[in-house]
Amino acid sequence: MQGLTASSQLSLAVVFAVFLLGSADAAHGLTRVVSSSSDEPCNEMTLYYHDILYNGVNNTRNATSAAATKPTALSTTHWKNGTYFGTLVVFNDPMTVGKALPVAGEEPAARAQGFYFYDKQESYTSWFGFSIVFNSTAHKGTMNLVGADLMDDKTRDLSVVGGTGDFFMARGIATLRLDASEGTVYFRLQMDIKLYECYV
Amino acid sequence: MQGLTASSQLSLAVVFAVFLLGSADAAHGLTRVVSSSSDEPCNEMTLYYHDILYNGVNNTRNATSAAATKPTALSTTHWKNGTYFGTLVVFNDPMTVGKALPVAGEEPAARAQGFYFYDKQESYTSWFGFSIVFNSTAHKGTMNLVGADLMDDKTRDLSVVGGTGDFFMARGIATLRLDASEGTVYFRLQMDIKLYECYV
Amino acid sequence: MQGLTASSQLSLAVVFAVFLLGSADAAHGLTRVVSSSSDEPCNEMTLYYHDILYNGVNNTRNATSAAATKPTALSTTHWKNGTYFGTLVVFNDPMTVGKALPVAGEEPAARAQGFYFYDKQESYTSWFGFSIVFNSTAHKGTMNLVGADLMDDKTRDLSVVGGTGDFFMARGIATLRLDASEGTVYFRLQMDIKLYECYV
Repeated sequence: MQGLTASSQLSLAVVFAVFLLGSADAAHGLTRVVSSSSDEPCNEMTLYYHDILYNGVNNTRNATSAAATKPTALSTTHWKNGTYFGTLVVFNDPMTVGKALPVAGEEPAARAQGFYFYDKQESYTSWFGFSIVFNSTAHKGTMNLVGADLMDDKTRDLSVVGGTGDFFMARGIATLRLDASEGTVYFRLQMDIKLYECYV
Repeated sequence: MQGLTASSQLSLAVVFAVFLLGSADAAHGLTRVVSSSSDEPCNEMTLYYHDILYNGVNNTRNATSAAATKPTALSTTHWKNGTYFGTLVVFNDPMTVGKALPVAGEEPAARAQGFYFYDKQESYTSWFGFSIVFNSTAHKGTMNLVGADLMDDKTRDLSVVGGTGDFFMARGIATLRLDASEGTVYFRLQMDIKLYECYV
Repeated sequence: MQGLTASSQLSLAVVFAVFLLGSADAAHGLTRVVSSSSDEPCNEMTLYYHDILYNGVNNTRNATSAAATKPTALSTTHWKNGTYFGTLVVFNDPMTVGKALPVAGEEPAARAQGFYFYDKQESYTSWFGFSIVFNSTAHKGTMNLVGADLMDDKTRDLSVVGGTGDFFMARGIATLRLDASEGTVYFRLQMDIKLYECYV
């Protein structure tokens, strides 16, 4: 690149972008864009995931997730600390742009629909499979994610393995960190999502 | 290799390597094909998915799926309409090219092996993880899918996140629509599958 | 594009490609590598997966997996051979480079964290969703896999649908074969993993 001025580099980039748009041959067709480097996601966003676990007593109305299986005896017999090994939780959790839960009647930015289960004897780790479902004026479509939530790590990464609608054929990484929790009934995760394969 | 000198062994190796590279175009090597636009899938097909749910009474012989967990109290206490929140169903369902179930002794075009679970309080949505397993003269291999089945929508899309055999490394979209149902014991989904990443 | 000749468009594209390659060189950026042929994986390894199922009696200390659900009546009523249809097993299993289990105090090469469930009436097949979690000097990161374990086949393939850390955005195939088993309490799978999409 030596010998090129900053302004000539800029015009090269602009011209190339125009060329790419030109190659989207048809009306409603989307064009594939893939990041050649991990430094340059083709889309990114941050959302907060709110899990309100049904406590079996008095939060039926507010709860957005519930355990479908009990901890196995493997968890309760030897490992007295109760790490819920084998407990599978199904959720339909609100996701928001800010940290606050939606107020009554307000639609969240998206919903996370899926499951996680605990899978470690000595401490806590879990495994997630879920979709982020968007149905707003801003976005329509889904992102599909799977991966290990290594809860002992300050941040941990899941895979975005596919997408539909506005996120047609997406792939990427979601970085999770615990943002808040209240006993065993509520926790909030910050999810920084970066896509490296997009159709635009 | 007896009778060959070291140097002729070397040239044989080189020739063999060239032969291997050449064979990537044909025999056992598959070549990657990616759709640059969402308008041009590299493969597509339509299959019907038949789910015959075990009713616990008299359809043991015909049933191809069964609930592995009960609805959570979150579903049965507050939400009196019974949306099965937390019920996880394991299935090994026939998939057919036409709408009819296979007749006795006939092999279906493929089998769908996996699970879905219900994950909404107020109405019905579910989440699927499964493989479409082909083992016929037409196709051998699997496609692996995950995603949200948003049952309130007329059509909804899942992600094909991988494949093996004839569908080596496939990615794409499966569009689902309810095609028929009989009470809580049977439903049939039309699945229009379009792949945008293939090896051919 | 107006005012540019065809040949100047071509050279712009070439220059832009060089510019892109240049920016991939930066410190923490990883560059995308995709196999154009199924004969040329961009990464491969073999690992052994050890599943030690909790027997409910005397192996609490050694067990690394446990059933979270019971076989459904669909499995136990009609199909007297007991194929565990509907049994879901959660695991946190060691993975090793050689065939031997890690000795006491030794860290395995990786851990497989996830679940499988049995999904066939007449014989055995299962479906897997899990992460291979690396946390050693050799590798840090995860690979995420889903797919059908067609246990009647000598070898069967799962999909690597994503990865993180050293396996950022990985895709590929894991070929499984049963390597050893001891009753219903232990089995060992050889997993030959080949990646066809990498960032290096």
